[in-house]
Amino acid sequence: MIRIAVVGHLARSSGDFSINDLPGAAGRMDVLCRCVNSSFFLSHDLRRDVECFLVLCGEPDPPKTIKISGRDVKHLNPDERTTAALLKKALSMVTGTKFRESTPGIFVRRGGLKELAQDFSFSVLDEGGLDIRSESKLPEAYILSDHLNFSPAENEILSGMPACSVGPQLLHADHTISVLFNEIDRRRAGWA
Amino acid sequence: MIRIAVVGHLARSSGDFSINDLPGAAGRMDVLCRCVNSSFFLSHDLRRDVECFLVLCGEPDPPKTIKISGRDVKHLNPDERTTAALLKKALSMVTGTKFRESTPGIFVRRGGLKELAQDFSFSVLDEGGLDIRSESKLPEAYILSDHLNFSPAENEILSGMPACSVGPQLLHADHTISVLFNEIDRRRAGWA
Repeated sequence: MIRIAVVGHLARSSGDFSINDLPGAAGRMDVLCRCVNSSFFLSHDLRRDVECFLVLCGEPDPPKTIKISGRDVKHLNPDERTTAALLKKALSMVTGTKFRESTPGIFVRRGGLKELAQDFSFSVLDEGGLDIRSESKLPEAYILSDHLNFSPAENEILSGMPACSVGPQLLHADHTISVLFNEIDRRRAGWA
Repeated sequence: MIRIAVVGHLARSSGDFSINDLPGAAGRMDVLCRCVNSSFFLSHDLRRDVECFLVLCGEPDPPKTIKISGRDVKHLNPDERTTAALLKKALSMVTGTKFRESTPGIFVRRGGLKELAQDFSFSVLDEGGLDIRSESKLPEAYILSDHLNFSPAENEILSGMPACSVGPQLLHADHTISVLFNEIDRRRAGWA
């Protein structure tokens, strides 16, 4: 199982956003939608052994965490708008501190990075980390940030976690995930 | 200069589509928008040394080709909807067989794969090709298909062109472009 967690620093934490304005009023929800796409989609297939976590830190009710399970997810399409509609539905539900399913394979709970870091041992995808091509064994859980850097409070939670990098350029989060999965695919197939 | 060309087999060839329905009535225009994103965006920067070509083969007026020049492009944002609005504007212009600029850095002309293949020496990004990591020198122009395979007529045009592959899995076109640029970035930075 590969786990990918993305922190959306401004991402709206309720379902009251318009899917016609993902970059603006929804707090760069477009970034998170593209990360979901990169985490799951293969050509005419889905990565069923992946879980993707979106940590929503924007107003009005942060933090919340959405979990998408590749094993069970349905109705997922590659375009941003369809994914956003699924996230909107999840964020419209009344929810507590335990994950609750909104549509097949999509769950939401109250809680953010702190709670998620207690659940899994993440490696931080960061440009200052060790080149993933030189890692003898790839990690199984990764965390990365949206278009903004991790805050000092987040860095405190992440301190002590190993860091790895996919390349010399600073990339968008979704591109980073695509490159990461290429390295994973290559090793599984004996190509690396 | 790196050139990326993507063939959109069903992509609408006029500007009469709704940016609220890119996967449907616009003929999977969402795929092409994500390819534009992968071709240009770095974190808080654009790849200025890239040109991206979109070959639109869908109704009602095919084929047309849109060229996006990283050197000159303006108003480009990462989300699908904003990119689609720029493409829609280009496809709403009256156009001939020479590229005509619609907004800064975005051009459109009549003509498709046949004409484009006369302009540049492409390598085909294809799962059957040579692993890009094993290429001693990377090509400078790449062509790939959207969610559909190349047609027999297109394969005839492409026959004789070298083929290269980014990995063992069949990927979406935009993910393929992200992985390709990672290899290019690594070689330029001495990381490969």
